[in-house]
Order: sequence, then C-alpha cells, then structure tokens
Amino acid sequence: MKILLSNDDGYLAPGLTSLKQGLQSRANIITVAPNRDRSGASNSLTLAYPLHLTSHGDEVYSVDGTPTDCVHIALTGLCDRLPDLVIAGINAGANLGDDVIYSGTVAAATEGRNLGLPAMAVSCCGTGDYHFDTAVQAVLALLDKILNLEITADTILNVNVPNVPWSEIKGFQVTRLGKRHQSEPVIKTQDPRGRDIYWIGPVGELLDAGEGTDFHAIENNYISVTPLHIDLTHYQSMKLTEQWLKEV
Amino acid sequence: MKILLSNDDGYLAPGLTSLKQGLQSRANIITVAPNRDRSGASNSLTLAYPLHLTSHGDEVYSVDGTPTDCVHIALTGLCDRLPDLVIAGINAGANLGDDVIYSGTVAAATEGRNLGLPAMAVSCCGTGDYHFDTAVQAVLALLDKILNLEITADTILNVNVPNVPWSEIKGFQVTRLGKRHQSEPVIKTQDPRGRDIYWIGPVGELLDAGEGTDFHAIENNYISVTPLHIDLTHYQSMKLTEQWLKEV
Amino acid sequence: MKILLSNDDGYLAPGLTSLKQGLQSRANIITVAPNRDRSGASNSLTLAYPLHLTSHGDEVYSVDGTPTDCVHIALTGLCDRLPDLVIAGINAGANLGDDVIYSGTVAAATEGRNLGLPAMAVSCCGTGDYHFDTAVQAVLALLDKILNLEITADTILNVNVPNVPWSEIKGFQVTRLGKRHQSEPVIKTQDPRGRDIYWIGPVGELLDAGEGTDFHAIENNYISVTPLHIDLTHYQSMKLTEQWLKEV
Amino acid sequence: MKILLSNDDGYLAPGLTSLKQGLQSRANIITVAPNRDRSGASNSLTLAYPLHLTSHGDEVYSVDGTPTDCVHIALTGLCDRLPDLVIAGINAGANLGDDVIYSGTVAAATEGRNLGLPAMAVSCCGTGDYHFDTAVQAVLALLDKILNLEITADTILNVNVPNVPWSEIKGFQVTRLGKRHQSEPVIKTQDPRGRDIYWIGPVGELLDAGEGTDFHAIENNYISVTPLHIDLTHYQSMKLTEQWLKEV
Repeated sequence: MKILLSNDDGYLAPGLTSLKQGLQSRANIITVAPNRDRSGASNSLTLAYPLHLTSHGDEVYSVDGTPTDCVHIALTGLCDRLPDLVIAGINAGANLGDDVIYSGTVAAATEGRNLGLPAMAVSCCGTGDYHFDTAVQAVLALLDKILNLEITADTILNVNVPNVPWSEIKGFQVTRLGKRHQSEPVIKTQDPRGRDIYWIGPVGELLDAGEGTDFHAIENNYISVTPLHIDLTHYQSMKLTEQWLKEV
Repeated sequence: MKILLSNDDGYLAPGLTSLKQGLQSRANIITVAPNRDRSGASNSLTLAYPLHLTSHGDEVYSVDGTPTDCVHIALTGLCDRLPDLVIAGINAGANLGDDVIYSGTVAAATEGRNLGLPAMAVSCCGTGDYHFDTAVQAVLALLDKILNLEITADTILNVNVPNVPWSEIKGFQVTRLGKRHQSEPVIKTQDPRGRDIYWIGPVGELLDAGEGTDFHAIENNYISVTPLHIDLTHYQSMKLTEQWLKEV
Repeated sequence: MKILLSNDDGYLAPGLTSLKQGLQSRANIITVAPNRDRSGASNSLTLAYPLHLTSHGDEVYSVDGTPTDCVHIALTGLCDRLPDLVIAGINAGANLGDDVIYSGTVAAATEGRNLGLPAMAVSCCGTGDYHFDTAVQAVLALLDKILNLEITADTILNVNVPNVPWSEIKGFQVTRLGKRHQSEPVIKTQDPRGRDIYWIGPVGELLDAGEGTDFHAIENNYISVTPLHIDLTHYQSMKLTEQWLKEV
Repeated sequence: MKILLSNDDGYLAPGLTSLKQGLQSRANIITVAPNRDRSGASNSLTLAYPLHLTSHGDEVYSVDGTPTDCVHIALTGLCDRLPDLVIAGINAGANLGDDVIYSGTVAAATEGRNLGLPAMAVSCCGTGDYHFDTAVQAVLALLDKILNLEITADTILNVNVPNVPWSEIKGFQVTRLGKRHQSEPVIKTQDPRGRDIYWIGPVGELLDAGEGTDFHAIENNYISVTPLHIDLTHYQSMKLTEQWLKEV
C-alpha cells in the first residue's frame, strides 16, 4: 500500500512526523507538505505563480504553496505510481463543525479525492501537548479497512481524535458536523505605531453540539468520523429554487 | 435594502464596479473587498496576522486579506446595521463544476451565509471582454425575489452568466454542478535561472456537462443558478460509514 | 524630458498622484509602482517568482512586486525609450537618518541609478495631512537643474520636505544623514488567540541631529537634500582592514 | 564569546548549519533566522504585521520575517545578554559587486551593526556543491582577531569565499566592490494560462572586475573581505551638490 501524506502545519510539524513514523512499517509513504504553517488556507490553489519543490530525502518534499497545491503537485506530476490513499494530518487542533471549510487539512484530503483517491483528514483535538500517538492509533485502526469503504466518489472522511491516551478512547462514532453560533466580533485594536488593526475574532459558542455531532463525540472521548461532500450541490433545494426562479 | 458587495478580484475590479453602479439606485451599498487579486483563495481565513482596513470613500473599503476576511470583517465589526444580502462578484470568469471549491467569489458568499445572511456568488463566464452588464441585469432580476427564497439556512446561490449581450440570454436554469475529468498534469519547467518550477496545470476536460449541469446551461446561453451547501456533512453516506466502522 | 515615477506606497497613493499631476505639464511621465503598500521593502528584488504588470491607462502601470522590481521592469523592458530621470515618491512620511536603508522609496531611486539614470527619492515629512503640494514645488524647483548636476554615477539625491505650506519653507540645504540611538526594544505581546507575537519597536531617540544633518534641516523648515552612495564600499577603512588582515 | 548567527536562506539551510557546527566549540551560539528562503530581501523590515518566533531547541529560533527582522528581534528583545558579534551566512552563492544591495545576508549583518555590534556577512561563491567547510575555516581564521578590528562604527565586513577546498585558498584580500554592466533585460514570457509574466533578468556582464575588486579576488582563489558602509551619506559629493543647489 502506498500513502501520500500532507498537512497544513508544514512539513516539519510534529503531527505529520508522528504519522509518518506510525505508518512506516505498514505502507510505502511519500510526504508532500507546505514549507511553513498554512493553517486556515482552505482549498486555496496557486494559479498566478509557479511553485518550488524541495526534496528533504526519504521521500519527503516541501512546497512553497498551500496544502491543496501540495497534494495537486504530488498526484499530477511528482508520483510515478499513484498512491492508494491520501491522509492529511495529524493536525494540531480540532477540525470540527462549520469551521471545516477554513481548514487546510480537510482541503488537502479534498484535493486527494478530487484527483480520484480515497482520502481522510485527521486532527488531534485540544491545544498543546497533543496525544498524536492516540491519533496515529486511530489511523492504523482505520487503515486496514479504508479501501473497503464503498463511499461515493465525492466523499472524504474527516477524523477528529480526542486529546487523551488511547486507553481512554471509547470507540469510533459516525457523526454530522455540529454548528456554532456566529463568530465573536472582529477585534479592533491598534498596532504599536497607532495604526488600526483588526483580528478575526474567536469562534462562536456551540449551537448544535448535541448527540450525533462531531462536537458531542469528542466531548465523550469518541473518535469522530464525519463523511464530507466534495460535490457542493445542494440537491435537496434544487426543486424549491426552481419554483422560485419562475417568479423572477 | 442594504447589500454588502465583495469579490476576489480586488476592490478596483471592473466586475465589482459594474455591479455597484447597477445596484446603486436599488439599494444601499457597502463594498468590502481585497486590496488586490485574490483569485483561488477559497475560504482561506487569516488568523495569524491582523488585517488593515482602508476607506476609499463612498462606503468602499479594501482589506489586505482574503475574500472571506473581507466579508467577516464587514459583518462582525464594520457594519453598524447588518446588510440584508451579500453578493460576491461579478467575477471575471466562470465558477462552474468542481472548481467552485477553489473560488474566492463563492467563498465570500459562503462567509456571508455562515454569518447569517442570504448570499449569492455571481460570475461572468468567458475570458476577457466581459459582458458585465448582462450579469448586472441578471442580478437585478434576482434581486426582487431573493428575500422570498426560503432555502435552508445553509445554502447559497452560485450564479453564472453567459458572456453574451442580455438579448441573447435564454432565461434562468437551476442546475447541479457539473464535473470535469482530473486536471491536466502539473507543468514542470525552469525559470530563467535554471531552477525547476511547477505550474498548476489546466483544468481537465468536461466529464459531466450534460443536461441539468451548470456547464450545459451556460453552453446554451442560460443563466445558471446552483444552490450550494454550506454544511459539508454528506448525510447520505453516514449509514454506510457506520456499518463500515463496525468492522474497524 | 521623460520621467519615470515610482514609490513604495502603491500606485494609487496620494503622494504619487500629486507628483504626477504636478509634473504633467513639464515632462512626459510614465508611472510604474507596486500594486499595494510596500513600505519597508528596502532594495528587495523578486527573483524566485515572476511578476505581473497591469496597465491602468495614461501610462500608469502597477506590478505585484517591490519598488525595486517596478523600476527594474520599467527600465529593462517596459520603456521603449529610456527616461531621463527617475523620481521615487512622494513618500507619505520622512526618510531620514539611518532609517533610509529600510526605505522602499530610496530603494526605487537607487535602482534607477543602478540602471544608469539620475534619480531622486522625495519624501514628505510628518504624519497624516501631508502637504504634498509643497513637496511637488520642491521637485519642480530641482527639476530644471537636475540634469546639470555632475554628481558621480553612483549617487542619488534623497530629498525630504518639511510638512508645511510652501510659504514657510526657508530654502534648500545639503545635509548628511543624521543618526538615531538604537531602536526601542521589540514589543512582545499576544494575539487574541493567546499566541505570542512580536512587533518591531519604535525608532530610537535622535543621537546626531545637529547642524548639517537632515533631521536638523527639516526641524528648521529647510528642504533636506542628501547625496547617497550606491557603491557601498567603505574606501576609508580599506587600509585599516588590510593591516588587520595581516594578523589573521 | 557569544555570537548571533542569521542568514537569508532559512534556518535549516546547510550553510548556516555548517557554520553553527564549526563555531560551536569556540563560542556560545544563538541562531535566529527566517523560517524559509528570503534571498533578495535586502534590508526589508516588517512594520505593518507582527512576527512569530519559534524555538527549535539548542538556541535555534526561526521567525516568519526577513533577515533584518530576525537580527532586530534577537538584539532588541530575545537575547538576555547581547552577543559580541553577528555573523550572517554562510550564504549559498556569492554576494559580490553592486549586487550586495539586494542581499539579505549582507542586510542581516548591517542590522547587527546598526544595533551596535561588529558584524560580518559570509558567502560561499559558486552554484551547488558548496565547500561550506572552506568558508567555515575562513570565519574561524577571522574570528580570533575580529574584536580587535578598529573599523568605524558604521562598517561591516562582507566576506566572500571561493568555492574550492581550503588547500587551494591563496589567502585573504581586502577588496572594493566590483561593478557589473546593467542587468540583462527583463524576460517577458507567458504562464501556462497565457497570462504575461515578467522575470527579473540575469545580472549584467562584469564591468569592473579588475585588480582590487572582490570579483578579482574570488577569481584568483583569494578570500575577499570588503568593508561596507552603513552610513549611506556620500560625503565627497556634498560640496558639489551644495554649489549646484545655489542655482536652484
């Protein structure tokens, strides 16, 4: 089995390194990841500038681009033989609820799926002192079966792992994305030169974190597995929109 | 009616200016857009650095950030009174099929919806010599009714307009996103200093561009209106994933 | 007479626009400037990525690069006929003393001189509410004579103008760069997410601002004109270094 | 003896690592360098955004800024006890002649001198397969004596080392900066999407590479040591400028 690893924290991030080490004996690994932290990059793709690829030996490459650029370059040019699977992560921090649209980790997996491969994004919840080993265990457990999973061609798995020792993990749960209240207001302040600056504010309070959500799974020490669309069409509302358009 | 305009081509882009002029007499307009071209930015959000807001008079502001940053800053801090609607565009070039996940235009609309407002992304198809006036007409036609559209709270409208005079437009069509074959390979070449560089290659050939798709509508001079999800959960595959997880 | 204008505040900056208007009747003007604020860019040159040039009509171009890139592209490719002179500015804020090495305005002039043309950098002192008209007057006064100035081929003029009405200007003074005490310490603080951030601190107090310095001229409402080296060799200390090297 | 190391090739660059290893037994080393390649950054200083400092253990830090930012942050905040000396390098590639004004390596040394410390920039000439060990030897030879060098407070040493084994080095030479003819024209081409792009062209042919220049020293396998100004005032042309100004 051949696996492409990527992430959005940069090719030297401990979460990625842990994952590479954990998978080493189970698969043939190639790593293509950003040359620096690109958290929040979403599916950003670099079209106006060229990219540079640097080899660091042992099939590890860095790119001066986004997570999406990395997976794109790997699958449409760098790899002689296509991998069987793309794994993005292990992200340092959760990718849960409505925030997943900003995630570079999820985007890296999405690009893998877009280019025809099964893909998952893996994140370790919490802040600091991450139990990456727990997340690695989770990946190893999923790995055996992932190629049997007959999910539609436009779905990826978003895996979030509680930040606890493996012994405290209760199991896996399939979840839907929870929801947050609207973000807190942007924070307006001044830099030391007296110029106004604005920081994107904190995420909102939890709005839908009930049973069945990814928030709820993590809260209860379950590993959360959420299937995510690649096809953004909202089929259910097509009919409604059609009726409405008749009035236009 | 109050409308927030944004885009990903920058606050001075002709498509945005045309839209502002076209809407001026119908609504109270505030414009918050990137200070330069940010095409391909997707839902990228700037968390590690602060943003700067520059006023250009006449309720036009630019931000040194992404389209998502612009809408976020507008709706969570800048606007005293929230707008009734967010419109992103008019983009210079189509946002069709699987490519919408990379779009900064679609992302700007998504951020509007995330923050609680009805939102649409508007793009003028073609390359160069854009009929922005046709796209403005399309927006004006939709505008009267948009607030009556009872689509679910996690849906935006992705509107693509053929690049032809208004007289040649056949009407509106509700569509699903079409699909392309995988992208063409990354283009490896050398810069003038002899260093290897990689350009993201062209999009793939059309794979699903049949009736009902946005590609098909545009090809036939219909204005394409596609409802897009904000909630990325793929509910239909949750059961399947659940069964599969039992084996893990 | 043909003049190339550039700056580091971006092609839409009021200081540049004032200068263009003021010179219009006296010379043939071409403007090539950054597409956004690039203050502090120094002589930074973009080698690893290509640049894009956008025409805004009326011989005004913007470039997605540094001030040095702009002048370089103008003089080694864009201009059919080379200009007779390069003027960088009018900068919004002083470029005095040891700080000139960080200045993108001074760097734009330096690049002009490097590529064989007489060049000057012009800055309007103060903060906000700039008397750009005074600086324009100063440039017009220098303009008639500038081509007669037989300064060595590796010198540019760094012109700083007091931020007062023209009627209050006392005259021109040739000056040396003053000096400041060391910068204030870097400012360590935290962003709203609790992550440590560092801001470059304020410049130091004046150390050498006595008669003959640019600081002193400005303080006394004189326009300061400082000839600056392009050749960085410190000829005076070559002998000393030679003796010292014998011991190595 | 305590030494601050920095560079413009990034904190992981082999030239920097070689230097650190070579100096380890002779001095107390702290390394603060950019988190990625910032070649060509010149004295660029980041004022509009904050910087982030990442510790990599063993007194090695990376900063998401320019070489100048790195030295500034080290000397005005990070170091409890100021170093005795700043060394920037070993750069992968020469910093000779008029090109030094673009150099981030030279800029890092300049910032050290600006903040009150003796400083040198060290570059290994050639392209690829660098003899960094030769350059390290050169630094070690200079090190013993550097604190005895009574050069004026506004001078740094720009050291370039031929890319040959140490046994082939002929000695040290004090040099002046050579000069090149004007750069080759900017290279106008198109990206794969048909958009015009411009690459800064190659440097010009040698114009002044005669005896006494840094080019000449390197050509003859001497280590070139050029004292460079920090004070950009061109004192020699002040009188001439003064006479000229009388006519204005």
